Amino acid sequence: MRKDLIETWKKRINQLRREEKRFINLNPIQRGGILSPEARKILDEFADGYSLCDWCTGSLYELKRPPVLEFLEDLASFLGTDVGRVVTRCREAKYIIFKTLAEPGDVIVVDGLAHYSTFLAAEAAGLKVVQVEHSGYPSFELKLEEYQRRIEEIKRTYRKPPALVLLTHADPTYGNLGDVKKVSKICREEDIPFVLNAAYTAGVMPVDCKELGVDLLVSSGHKSWAASGPIGILAMRREYAAKVLRRSSSFPKKELAVMGCPVLGLPLVTLMASFPYVMERVKSWESELEKTRYLVNKLEEIQGTIQLGVKPKQHHLIHMESKGFEQVSKRVKERGYFLYHELKERGVVGILPGRSKHFKLSVYGLEWGEVKRVAEVFQEIAKKYGVM
Amino acid sequence: MRKDLIETWKKRINQLRREEKRFINLNPIQRGGILSPEARKILDEFADGYSLCDWCTGSLYELKRPPVLEFLEDLASFLGTDVGRVVTRCREAKYIIFKTLAEPGDVIVVDGLAHYSTFLAAEAAGLKVVQVEHSGYPSFELKLEEYQRRIEEIKRTYRKPPALVLLTHADPTYGNLGDVKKVSKICREEDIPFVLNAAYTAGVMPVDCKELGVDLLVSSGHKSWAASGPIGILAMRREYAAKVLRRSSSFPKKELAVMGCPVLGLPLVTLMASFPYVMERVKSWESELEKTRYLVNKLEEIQGTIQLGVKPKQHHLIHMESKGFEQVSKRVKERGYFLYHELKERGVVGILPGRSKHFKLSVYGLEWGEVKRVAEVFQEIAKKYGVM
Repeated sequence: MRKDLIETWKKRINQLRREEKRFINLNPIQRGGILSPEARKILDEFADGYSLCDWCTGSLYELKRPPVLEFLEDLASFLGTDVGRVVTRCREAKYIIFKTLAEPGDVIVVDGLAHYSTFLAAEAAGLKVVQVEHSGYPSFELKLEEYQRRIEEIKRTYRKPPALVLLTHADPTYGNLGDVKKVSKICREEDIPFVLNAAYTAGVMPVDCKELGVDLLVSSGHKSWAASGPIGILAMRREYAAKVLRRSSSFPKKELAVMGCPVLGLPLVTLMASFPYVMERVKSWESELEKTRYLVNKLEEIQGTIQLGVKPKQHHLIHMESKGFEQVSKRVKERGYFLYHELKERGVVGILPGRSKHFKLSVYGLEWGEVKRVAEVFQEIAKKYGVM
Repeated sequence: MRKDLIETWKKRINQLRREEKRFINLNPIQRGGILSPEARKILDEFADGYSLCDWCTGSLYELKRPPVLEFLEDLASFLGTDVGRVVTRCREAKYIIFKTLAEPGDVIVVDGLAHYSTFLAAEAAGLKVVQVEHSGYPSFELKLEEYQRRIEEIKRTYRKPPALVLLTHADPTYGNLGDVKKVSKICREEDIPFVLNAAYTAGVMPVDCKELGVDLLVSSGHKSWAASGPIGILAMRREYAAKVLRRSSSFPKKELAVMGCPVLGLPLVTLMASFPYVMERVKSWESELEKTRYLVNKLEEIQGTIQLGVKPKQHHLIHMESKGFEQVSKRVKERGYFLYHELKERGVVGILPGRSKHFKLSVYGLEWGEVKRVAEVFQEIAKKYGVM
């Protein structure tokens, strides 16, 4: 150990302050993870390492104080399915499904706009991935009927159907919302397990597995459930639980794939404390979409600026292409960073530093006044640089 | 979704309060995970979902603001090794090692006092486990020289050496501290990777991988590093990094076994904020052992009460056997629960409800005045029930 390490870190702790917290943050991954007031109140209470475990009798899933057992039941009910679990991350939930419903070497079908962690989870589980295409620029709409064709191809090539099919409910690049029923219908007819990656949707908008025909759902607590990170959600129909949640042979109280208690402390407590808040807020999804569409309209008034992805928006993640701001970036000293700095000066952060031609943003959960301010700020900057 | 769910959970949130927080908590898993004052100050700042990711450029491990990159380097240095990583849990760190250094069907050797999660991680990775025996009641001392014999047996039976050897530094049942060098010497001579499970030691006592001959170390942030749960630590010599931290073939910035960014938010921020505190506190390990031994002496003054495990204590986890308290439990209405209730009435919690013959406890990190108070409380109860 280096001699100066303690002194160095005493100083560094002061740099841990997060000045971004005082700004309006438009980063799409940040909007759905802002804590509810109820969750914020409980932070100090459960901040210590194992503070959730005072009343444990051997399994987190059976814990009654705090009411984890009841929470998991009600979480499943809220999602319109039978069994709910919390795991360390959404990608972990995918990995658990891949590992328990498929064998290494098996093929799965996923949408071509899936999150990178879907591919990582498949690679870690030793699976081959076949992708379903999208329409390309500018709407990047998934060709969902292709799921059928891919399944046929796989059956011909490998003499067995894919181990499972996955659809990313709202893709992380364009925020296109997939038509879940189209895919679930194909899967039901082909008798293939259907997984919905609801990392960006469940918790911010209504998602009902029964109505949508979803067999297994994964989601992200820190992305969309007003919870501290990291925490994932894994929910499924009863018939899948025996395989996915198989118990350890040596420790029959413990579920093998999650290796016992998967998550504890603040990620789980804040998820629970925000649960009523989340159940309420999904009812306001339509008004969130209004804010999203309002902002898109205002941004498209800037020169050479269009929304990519399907129009009108069905999800809060917005991906803009701005040839106007790109032009500016070519003639200013700061290059692409001008947009980040101009926004920050006006109290807005969350656009990736350096980006000007393409940028993602979201106003999910902001008040109307703030949404209007965000639109004004972008237009102010556009006018300052003569692209509006 | 059930109609009354929102109202039910609004009420349940109030039950989330943790009255145990106001008591002296003797649960051994709780003592090393109590936050440092510095970590407690930063809770609100990083409580929102992705609050750590404002400045991300694609990989948590390269993040400079907050200084995750530097933290991982300094964490490795503090542990006397080359490469440091944070993962979701200590068991995840074991699983990652098992999955990357062994093939399904391979054999590994572990101590017979290993934590259940070691067996779960091995089962999940498809490994066979051979155990090294201990001496049994009352000291339960591991026969560390048996590692050699087990390795020979495996080489004879399977025509190849075990894929790796694991020792639990301080076992979770008796708090016996293993003689690491004895095992690392055997592994070095046999050229077998040696893993130390330091979940209960690194972060509360000095652990230097280089000095101890450890190839790979795993530890638990919420158990022993004054961090919020869940967070695990994975550290290793450089030569193992290529295999254990192999990058994804499709996403070359992402490490495959951890599937990209493994942990974020408060678990990681509190681990970082507590780092100088932890580096300081391991220097006081000897005085922590004095407190531990003092309490053992006082508890052994109670009738029929002895400390199990090796004596004198080399670790803060104490396992007591009390035939005196067991006798009491047989004649009182509350049965074994009397001890829990009597302790709680006196401001002390953390002994598992119902336990009286065997119980585990720890006074790690308590002030001397509190340690003395704990000893008095136990003796008061013993006197009240006539077993002292």
